[in-house]
Amino acid sequence: MKIVIDGMGGDNAPDAIVEGVVQAVQELGQENQIILVGQEQLLTDALRKTRYNGNRIQIVNADSVISNDDAPVRAVRKMKDSSVVVGMNMVKNGEGDVFISAGSTGAILAGGLLILGRVKGIDRPTLATVYPVIGGKPSLLVDAGANAECKPRNLLEFAVMGSIYMEKVLGRENPTVGLVNNGTEEEKGTALTRAANKLLKESSVNFVGNIEARELQNSACDVIVTDGFTGNALIKLTEGLGLMVLRELKSIFLTSPMTKISAILMKEQLKKLKTEFDYKEYGGAPILGVKGALLKMHGSSDAKAVRQTILKAVLYVEENVVGIISDAVNPRSKRSSDTDDQEK
Amino acid sequence: MKIVIDGMGGDNAPDAIVEGVVQAVQELGQENQIILVGQEQLLTDALRKTRYNGNRIQIVNADSVISNDDAPVRAVRKMKDSSVVVGMNMVKNGEGDVFISAGSTGAILAGGLLILGRVKGIDRPTLATVYPVIGGKPSLLVDAGANAECKPRNLLEFAVMGSIYMEKVLGRENPTVGLVNNGTEEEKGTALTRAANKLLKESSVNFVGNIEARELQNSACDVIVTDGFTGNALIKLTEGLGLMVLRELKSIFLTSPMTKISAILMKEQLKKLKTEFDYKEYGGAPILGVKGALLKMHGSSDAKAVRQTILKAVLYVEENVVGIISDAVNPRSKRSSDTDDQEK
Repeated sequence: MKIVIDGMGGDNAPDAIVEGVVQAVQELGQENQIILVGQEQLLTDALRKTRYNGNRIQIVNADSVISNDDAPVRAVRKMKDSSVVVGMNMVKNGEGDVFISAGSTGAILAGGLLILGRVKGIDRPTLATVYPVIGGKPSLLVDAGANAECKPRNLLEFAVMGSIYMEKVLGRENPTVGLVNNGTEEEKGTALTRAANKLLKESSVNFVGNIEARELQNSACDVIVTDGFTGNALIKLTEGLGLMVLRELKSIFLTSPMTKISAILMKEQLKKLKTEFDYKEYGGAPILGVKGALLKMHGSSDAKAVRQTILKAVLYVEENVVGIISDAVNPRSKRSSDTDDQEK
Repeated sequence: MKIVIDGMGGDNAPDAIVEGVVQAVQELGQENQIILVGQEQLLTDALRKTRYNGNRIQIVNADSVISNDDAPVRAVRKMKDSSVVVGMNMVKNGEGDVFISAGSTGAILAGGLLILGRVKGIDRPTLATVYPVIGGKPSLLVDAGANAECKPRNLLEFAVMGSIYMEKVLGRENPTVGLVNNGTEEEKGTALTRAANKLLKESSVNFVGNIEARELQNSACDVIVTDGFTGNALIKLTEGLGLMVLRELKSIFLTSPMTKISAILMKEQLKKLKTEFDYKEYGGAPILGVKGALLKMHGSSDAKAVRQTILKAVLYVEENVVGIISDAVNPRSKRSSDTDDQEK
């Protein structure tokens, strides 16, 4: 397998990316290679610092980097020599099996649409994020922000694609699907959620009905379906609240010598709580519904997050998530004709 | 002032309501009376248990109770003898200055619209909730769930009404207003948020621009403006996450005798954290934009929450929030003609 990764994306590039790549390659079987895309000299220097001396990491040059300030669609169209465009084209042309980037979410989404293209039958690809559940198993949130405005059929597609990813990559058998709503009753909500509830009930996903945001932390469902505006708000609020609680706890523990000792006594448990809030741990966010395996990492990803994401990416490809999504939405078509762009 | 309160609403009625009323009346000046509305015998018994022996608490009989299972609009129309309808009619007829209930949110909103009526110039009244900020000053969230689907002008109205309540009742001078969005840039978001951003910029509120949900815990603004679907999700997620963190902390503190001692050492600080998450503390959620002062309490309100809400209700009336809202949306009209329903 050839894993293509953007060496230039995110706050800690290229060093954290390269370090994570080196960590991952040592855990992967000999048949796997990692291709770092970006400014060759920078990446070569970063790789040298790690003292990696194997032959399973390649560097492919890309002169420019799309930043968060660049307008995504325009940048993908114009900046042909950017790490995102070069890397994604490698997947499109069969020179890579998956593309990973911690760069601009907008550019990765735009690249997915413009370079890889949508799976036939999918109206809107989606960004799926692992949603942290304190003291419990994480859920998968679709859509996490790719589509601020949605039609009912989009929410159904998110549910189908999210269920496949949850089962194949995150290992949750027959995952339950809940629809975020302002009440559990079917007749509650907006025109969008009422229509989506109906579609989901009639669909093949394991739909457990509407769920209120209050229940997300009770592992109310494995796949949380919502529009990208609400999904973005939910994941960002959880992130902000988690950081704030941890900061507050820290200040509580610093109030006296005795409380400082207490913190030391509970170090392991507190570390676990911190980890649970930290969705960088969970291995990147897939963009589902495009003709190729595509993963977005958090912009602040460190080497550990990079390693985790690469390990998940292997499953994403091995389990043929892209092909299964295509089959699910085109039950009678030949899959190969839909997805041959990224398969060789 | 005459404060009318639903003695039958909420999980802990009538005892917690009556107990809260007794606590509050002792803190209020002699000129204030509280009128408990509900099943006379039940309320008389509950009041007797408190051993209250003053003459500033009256009981007004209402035979029925609207439950959360009753369809709100239908219930308000048909159940004329319910505590919500009887109590709200007292405010409408000038026999009371404010109505408070921990009962069905739907019924209270429907009653506000059907019995009190909208302030002239307001398209959609709103439910405003105090939004807890850990380690900081709370914000006010409008709309917290009254209007799942909104037009841009509704969001502007929420901002205007929320700013007035924040200043007059919660004492925050010249409150800042932020619009919840999936990015801070003006061009980001949905058709709704883009249009609302424009209206807010041109308005007289102290608009600080779009805010992401991640920033809510950083006291990014005093008044958080959003549609009722998103607002409902934000407040419920915060509530659910808060409960879960506290539960997790409790289990961390119970892992060993040493950690149990630590918990005792940090008791005061942990209690403060719990209080910050507990928005029952903050004195009820006003329904703004109706012709009368109206407050919804959390269904699980205890006596302390009831007392807090009654104390806030006094400010709500004394500061003439309803009149000021009317003036703000009808700058050239005579306020008395818009709001004389609830004024005597």
